[in-house]
This record gives sequence, structure tokens and C-alpha cells, in this order.
Amino acid sequence: MHQPVRNIALVVEYDGTDFHGFQVQPALRTVQGELEQGLLSVAQEQIRVAAAGRTDAGVHALGQVVSFKTKSQLSPDAILRALNSVLPDDLVVKKCVEAPPDFHARFSARSRWYRYTILNRPEPTALARAYVYHFKRRLDLEAMQMASDLLVGTHDYASFARVGSGATDTIRTVCQASWSRLDSLVFFDIGADGFLPQMVRGIVGTLIWVGTNKISVDEFREVMEARDRKVAGPTVPARGLCFIRATYGVPFGFQASAS
Amino acid sequence: MHQPVRNIALVVEYDGTDFHGFQVQPALRTVQGELEQGLLSVAQEQIRVAAAGRTDAGVHALGQVVSFKTKSQLSPDAILRALNSVLPDDLVVKKCVEAPPDFHARFSARSRWYRYTILNRPEPTALARAYVYHFKRRLDLEAMQMASDLLVGTHDYASFARVGSGATDTIRTVCQASWSRLDSLVFFDIGADGFLPQMVRGIVGTLIWVGTNKISVDEFREVMEARDRKVAGPTVPARGLCFIRATYGVPFGFQASAS
Repeated sequence: MHQPVRNIALVVEYDGTDFHGFQVQPALRTVQGELEQGLLSVAQEQIRVAAAGRTDAGVHALGQVVSFKTKSQLSPDAILRALNSVLPDDLVVKKCVEAPPDFHARFSARSRWYRYTILNRPEPTALARAYVYHFKRRLDLEAMQMASDLLVGTHDYASFARVGSGATDTIRTVCQASWSRLDSLVFFDIGADGFLPQMVRGIVGTLIWVGTNKISVDEFREVMEARDRKVAGPTVPARGLCFIRATYGVPFGFQASAS
Repeated sequence: MHQPVRNIALVVEYDGTDFHGFQVQPALRTVQGELEQGLLSVAQEQIRVAAAGRTDAGVHALGQVVSFKTKSQLSPDAILRALNSVLPDDLVVKKCVEAPPDFHARFSARSRWYRYTILNRPEPTALARAYVYHFKRRLDLEAMQMASDLLVGTHDYASFARVGSGATDTIRTVCQASWSRLDSLVFFDIGADGFLPQMVRGIVGTLIWVGTNKISVDEFREVMEARDRKVAGPTVPARGLCFIRATYGVPFGFQASAS
């Protein structure tokens, strides 16, 4: 009997602490590896999944979008419940829907959104320690926002990406880059059509230079224009970074929300 | 040379997941044990600490208040920094101040405040899994609030406390007991002059019976009046419970805040 192939999209949340990133790697615990192992047991099929954002080791996700093809005839609700019953507790499926045949979590995505969270006070935190970067000196958010405004638009972001990542096209379009403060928490929200490896963490590390007066906003512009990773700031820790959501266009209109 | 004895108060935050509660126990990892070991290394003194709320195993704290006597002449700021450099990362000192000689974190406290957090949606969470109790069925917060109103005042709370806790006086005064919802998170905030062992978790377990229509608000009143643990609901998991703050009167006026 011929089983039609279906296309399924998931929104997943994970705590990146104990994962070696999204992408499958031999002998390492990855999000993709756990998802594919879960699908093998749920759908009894060897399934390959694609993701909107292939997050690095230690990076979290609140609304990662994943898609895959399957011959399973389980309903989306049944897949969601079955997957959650076999997945480890640091990886959770929040939504499961039937997607159009040409939908692909990675290639159909119009934009990706990340949030970087800094705890900006002298005292560390115990409860949120796995999800924030603790930075003691008061950050000048006004200066950091002025520098961030330079990021918006279509630019070459080579200065901020991991060296040796093999990315040849280092041009991306950033649609928003904004800082906000809630008590002692500082948030950096950035959206773009795509990101280079470790780009957000390189940007945040360089913006912290601006926020501590180590470089001026004009010097930030020079760092950006240099297209040279060596002149930019450090890559801040992965634990502060979270993949928030991806957006998709018509006709799918799949908006992966965090709540 | 005679060293004057000083009285020091701390506000501490901890992730209760890997602690066997606050109170020191032989061969078990406790908050008190870690604090006293830290103080031994910082002040070179065997110091005994007291806490506003002796939380159970697995219960968290955002603003636990701790006090102790010491002959150390270190400034409060120096104690805070030195303690945080030796404490494990799931236990953090947020404030350190000089207290009047008669201040005692436990005996001087006027009220204690706890928050219980429920994730009330079908899908579990990965990022907050250590800090919430996941309950799938939609809770009727209006009914739960009506039952909670009965808790306010001076009453005998024996129905909700751990059996065999040895508490002979089971009368306490609850000043507030309120439910609120933020998206899929449901919060129960309760303040009282004091709490019996596992009282908050017994109350929440019984209020969930009300919120799922297993018992009525009138039946909740009967449970309360029975003064019998056997007729009340289950004790909900410790991971959803957090000690938020303690309040103190004049002249100390020490308000332990969470931020």
C-alpha cells in the first residue's frame, strides 16, 4: 500500500546547557540527534529533521522551528504527545502542525530572532545562572543602542562571525537590533534574514566594549567596516543566547511564538 | 585583644534543585551547610547561621534572609564578595548588611512570603522545568481565589501540614493568598507570620482540587476545618515553590527584596 508523504512542522523549546548544539554530530548529544531518535521510536522511521536556526553548543531555544517528512499517519496532536513522552526533559515540543509540501524550516524562513540576556549588577544569580551572562559593570545602553542602529540594514558582518566557519557570503540583512532593561536584566533582541556562526555573540561582545566606554560608537563602525574578526570584541558565553522564533511568509504563515 | 561581636544579615538566592533543604544535616548538601563552610573560609570562624524560612529539599529562594554573629572585622561588602567567590554557583549572596545586635533572621521576622508557580498548559517547558509544576488541565482561578480567601486570617492549618512534623501549635495568621495568571504561568502568592512544614504545598494541592472541580469552595472550607491532613489534597512538588522574602519591623526595617 502506498503511504503518502506528509510534511510536519514543530516548534520546540530546549535548554542548551547539556546539548552540543542543534546539528547532529557523531557520539555527541545534540538536539537534532535527540529529535531524530524520538521520531524513530514514535514514527518507526529514520527521519531527518531541518531547523530554522542551527544553534551552537550551549545556546537555548524558546521557539525553534523544525520540519521533516514522514509516512506516519499519526495526527499532529498524537505526534506532539508521543514525542514529548519520549524526549528528555530539556527538550520539549510546543506545537506540531501539518505543513504544505514545500515548507522547509530552514529554507522557507524569512527571518530569525535571537535574544541575548545579560544580568547587569554586581551580584550573580543562582536561579537564572544557566540563562544569563553576568556582567558586573553598569552598561551604557544608550551608547550601545546608537552602535546597534549601525547594524540595521544590509551589511557585511564578517567582523563578528567565527573565523574558519567557511561562510563565504558574509552579507546579511538585520531588520532590528534593540536593547532594553528590566531591573537588573538587559536584553538584546536582534532579527535578521540569517546569521553567520557566532555572529550574535560577537556583536554583543563588541557592543559591551561600547557600553563600557572601551570604544566609541564611531570606533564600532570602524570595527564593522574592517570585516576582520581580530578587531572586534570577544564572543560572549552561549548561555545568554536564546533562539526566540522564526517567521515565514505567505502562504504558510507559520508564526512560531514563544508562549 | 578583644574583638567585638558583630551581627550580620544576608539576603541569599538559591536554586533548591541540588540542596537537601536549608537546614544542616549530616552528610547531606544543605544551604546552611554551604553557607557555614563558606563563612569558615571567609571569616576563619565556626559560624552558625539562622534563616527566616527553613525551606524543604528542592524549594528555591529568591530573597531568603540569613543572620549570624561574627568577630570578623571585614566590611559587609567584603563579606559579600568573599562569600560569592567561594560559594557554589547555585547559592548566591545578594545583600550583606550590618544588623542591630538583637536582630535574628528567624525570630525577628514579621512575615514570610512564598510563591508557587504552575505551568498551566498542555505542553511542558524545557527552560523553566526546574522552577515550575507542570499541570495540563486548565485551572479555574476564580474558584481557587474564592477558596484562598478562606485561608486569610488566623486559623488552624493542620489539614495542610506534613504529618509527624512535630508542630504542636498549628495556628498561624495568613495575611494574603492570591492567584494570578501570566500567559500559561499561574502564580500563587502567600504571606503569613509563619508556615507549618509543607503547608504551602498542601494548600496548593488542595486548591488544585478546587480548580479542577474535584471539590467545591464549601468543601475546601470543610477540609480546612477538619484539621486532618488525610482529607486534604496532595503535596505538590517542591520545584514550583520559592521563598520570596521576609519582612521585619522597626527598628531594623530590613526589607529583603528579590531584585
